[in-house]
Amino acid sequence: MTTRIIVLNGGSSSGKTAIAHCLQAILPDPWLRLGVDDLVEALPPSLTDSGAGVAFGGQGEVSVGEGFIAMEAAWLTGIAAMVRAGARVIVDDVFLSGGTSQARMRLHFASIEVLWVGVRCERAIAAGREIARGDRVPGMAASQADMVHRGVRYDLEVDSGRMPAIDCARMIAVRVG
Amino acid sequence: MTTRIIVLNGGSSSGKTAIAHCLQAILPDPWLRLGVDDLVEALPPSLTDSGAGVAFGGQGEVSVGEGFIAMEAAWLTGIAAMVRAGARVIVDDVFLSGGTSQARMRLHFASIEVLWVGVRCERAIAAGREIARGDRVPGMAASQADMVHRGVRYDLEVDSGRMPAIDCARMIAVRVG
Amino acid sequence: MTTRIIVLNGGSSSGKTAIAHCLQAILPDPWLRLGVDDLVEALPPSLTDSGAGVAFGGQGEVSVGEGFIAMEAAWLTGIAAMVRAGARVIVDDVFLSGGTSQARMRLHFASIEVLWVGVRCERAIAAGREIARGDRVPGMAASQADMVHRGVRYDLEVDSGRMPAIDCARMIAVRVG
Amino acid sequence: MTTRIIVLNGGSSSGKTAIAHCLQAILPDPWLRLGVDDLVEALPPSLTDSGAGVAFGGQGEVSVGEGFIAMEAAWLTGIAAMVRAGARVIVDDVFLSGGTSQARMRLHFASIEVLWVGVRCERAIAAGREIARGDRVPGMAASQADMVHRGVRYDLEVDSGRMPAIDCARMIAVRVG
Repeated sequence: MTTRIIVLNGGSSSGKTAIAHCLQAILPDPWLRLGVDDLVEALPPSLTDSGAGVAFGGQGEVSVGEGFIAMEAAWLTGIAAMVRAGARVIVDDVFLSGGTSQARMRLHFASIEVLWVGVRCERAIAAGREIARGDRVPGMAASQADMVHRGVRYDLEVDSGRMPAIDCARMIAVRVG
Repeated sequence: MTTRIIVLNGGSSSGKTAIAHCLQAILPDPWLRLGVDDLVEALPPSLTDSGAGVAFGGQGEVSVGEGFIAMEAAWLTGIAAMVRAGARVIVDDVFLSGGTSQARMRLHFASIEVLWVGVRCERAIAAGREIARGDRVPGMAASQADMVHRGVRYDLEVDSGRMPAIDCARMIAVRVG
Repeated sequence: MTTRIIVLNGGSSSGKTAIAHCLQAILPDPWLRLGVDDLVEALPPSLTDSGAGVAFGGQGEVSVGEGFIAMEAAWLTGIAAMVRAGARVIVDDVFLSGGTSQARMRLHFASIEVLWVGVRCERAIAAGREIARGDRVPGMAASQADMVHRGVRYDLEVDSGRMPAIDCARMIAVRVG
Repeated sequence: MTTRIIVLNGGSSSGKTAIAHCLQAILPDPWLRLGVDDLVEALPPSLTDSGAGVAFGGQGEVSVGEGFIAMEAAWLTGIAAMVRAGARVIVDDVFLSGGTSQARMRLHFASIEVLWVGVRCERAIAAGREIARGDRVPGMAASQADMVHRGVRYDLEVDSGRMPAIDCARMIAVRVG
């Protein structure tokens, strides 16, 4: 079977987006890059300013409400349909509920060949990158570093703290069927 | 029937995104905002740096190749699936081929209630806004101002040069079923 | 005397930056564009996350502390020096203390020919634009609309709610000596 | 003497801005961050669209004309004045002319205590980061990697390819007088 979706799961500032850009540059076929950040960007203010949607706390914690979960379900249905219509998609996500998030995504991507990739990054390194970005609420990187991997099963894991994004991408690329 | 997709079609710097943001703020239900700019953002470099994809010329002209058309088709299939899964979506687009673009979109959105909105803006005003944005290749606004409306049939047209975005949004909102 | 600094003062979402971009495009000489937003961008986190610096409240209110005032004074001294070294500068500012802010700026720009421009915009229109931008804390535009003009004396006022930015820029350009 | 300016010189994608953000976060006093990118951002279109200013070629090459050099001189005069007025400034720059650029800067910063820092990054690593950023013209990182250090004398050099930005910042911070 041919890989049609690459899921990159990792905490904030773990380097997922950098790896996704590198994958787009080195994979021979055209891949779309769609992440949970794009979904958040597409949301109305009623789902980013209230308990019903996604909320970012002052200490870096992120919470999501029922309104967000419903939108995310429709979004994932859409990505699956894009793939069935011929697209290849790199999904850049943060599994706030670890294995439960993965199970939810698995239902949406049933019958599609998915490559599940864990993007690890040592907590201290991710926290350092968060400072280096200069525009992030401190604390998100540290709080998500381990949490997002709990109970998740991967085809492949990369450690973005130990090798550059382009090298992580090369490791992933050889596993794309 | 209930409107599930609002298509805003207009040239560059005609004010579509501003109107889309206002619609998200005033409509009682949550609406996602997904535009052709988001698709372009999701593309790999092979489809933005070559003749196969989308290309922006030095005089403001935009051309699209077969690779882009294929991706756009999958993207529209995905939006239709999101809507069938319960989402409401504002699509912010530029019909580079006018009525032909609309016909293509109509096929993808078959059996979904769509509100087709033309966002007009006098050529000179759009060109002025392009200068005011400070980061656009000059010429795109003027070259697209009329072209994108050729052969397109609307449920409603608004003139963003004559009224603020929030007022255009109010005119559109009353037509949302 | 020859104008070397153009100060544009107006509330949030009044359209100052759009007018500044237009001025840069139409004025025959090269003008730098430096605004209070650039200063805020240059600040360390200790001056954006604490009472000592600049703080943005949840209702759109902005407050500045002593640390910010000190940095702003050095910043204005620097702009004056750039001008004395030959540059022309468009300063895009928000006089949170109205006439008091102007008096402070006047001291820094002593012996330089300054064109003081008030950028007015009806409160409701500015509030509408704030919604249209999609990324602003609601309330800032309305709360600043009148406040920033209190006690300020201008060479020229433009109403960005009644005419496009490019036309405001043309009105200002003819007054540049 | 007390350090008042930290100059970070390195090629595109060498990680200067990340180090600058980290320095702002860890240094006990407030430091402004002002880079050549901010100057380019402040320029009028006449100095970014023509041979008189700064131009970015399709292969990653950057050229600057007389108009840009004049503006840069005024800009550096302004930064020196900010420092004499009490500010501390981190200057994030790319010495396109190596030692000649440094000599020019030295004249402007005469009588100010400057810490000159070279930000090195192996060519291949910088090129990989350029791809990972996803929005850069390929080639700039590689072409600048060595060129910008030619003939430059530093107080301290850091290798951002071998250690995270936060660790580079810590090495620099201990040298700030």
